[in-house]
Amino acid sequence: MNIAVKEAFHGLKLNHGGPFGAVIVRNGKIIAKGHNKVLKTNDPTAHAEITAIRKASVKLKKFNLSDCEVYSSGEPCPMCFAAIHWAKIEKLYYGCTRKDAAEIGFDDEFIYDVIKGVSKKQQVKIIQTGRNKCLEPFKVWGKTKNKIRY
Amino acid sequence: MNIAVKEAFHGLKLNHGGPFGAVIVRNGKIIAKGHNKVLKTNDPTAHAEITAIRKASVKLKKFNLSDCEVYSSGEPCPMCFAAIHWAKIEKLYYGCTRKDAAEIGFDDEFIYDVIKGVSKKQQVKIIQTGRNKCLEPFKVWGKTKNKIRY
Repeated sequence: MNIAVKEAFHGLKLNHGGPFGAVIVRNGKIIAKGHNKVLKTNDPTAHAEITAIRKASVKLKKFNLSDCEVYSSGEPCPMCFAAIHWAKIEKLYYGCTRKDAAEIGFDDEFIYDVIKGVSKKQQVKIIQTGRNKCLEPFKVWGKTKNKIRY
Repeated sequence: MNIAVKEAFHGLKLNHGGPFGAVIVRNGKIIAKGHNKVLKTNDPTAHAEITAIRKASVKLKKFNLSDCEVYSSGEPCPMCFAAIHWAKIEKLYYGCTRKDAAEIGFDDEFIYDVIKGVSKKQQVKIIQTGRNKCLEPFKVWGKTKNKIRY
């Protein structure tokens, strides 16, 4: 976790984004380090955990990181928390909480509350449309044999 | 939405990943199209919406896409739903549901249930540790004047 904090400070010094760092570890060895790069890259998805997961999956040449653990200096936001699930990671260590993040101006807790259905405010207007048309590629996938699942 | 479906079929044909497509639109004009590329890139975060948001933010040279709308052939998973929030997008159109995705083998609904605290199974063991150390970069950010918020 000290290395995740160091990575957070590194990103702050470079003015790459918010004060967050993450490290992916396999068998006690560091596979990838990442810090928030939203400001540097203009990519709103470039959170520390996402950056670290992307690096690790490129390095290990696989999308399944089930043999890895992630250390994150802040509690992952829903985007990063879900990304950890998609990467099949089974162990997450985190330091600061979503409330700590809210206190310095980040929306992690708000987005969690929206997903849980307990937020009073709403940012995104959501409209469902065209389900039948959208089901067509789903049906093709469903019928595809020998597909790689992820 | 028809273009999002076309993009989903395009990704399927190329065997890039699951049957999902997304389109970012501003003032009625397409800014970016994306399809799932998890298999192609080995990046577990390369969902259609994330791919489209990344392209749009690079193209528009900004992380704030509040003047854009997103069309997604499938209901965004929590990763993509949160990414839409971080991108400040205010309007989301989607076709298939998380239940439709579950029926063809995707974990969207499972991850939503984990976040909502209603899932019976758990994939990720979560351990909080080192909060005081992790708060240090948070404090630096909190005290930084004239910072760019995102």
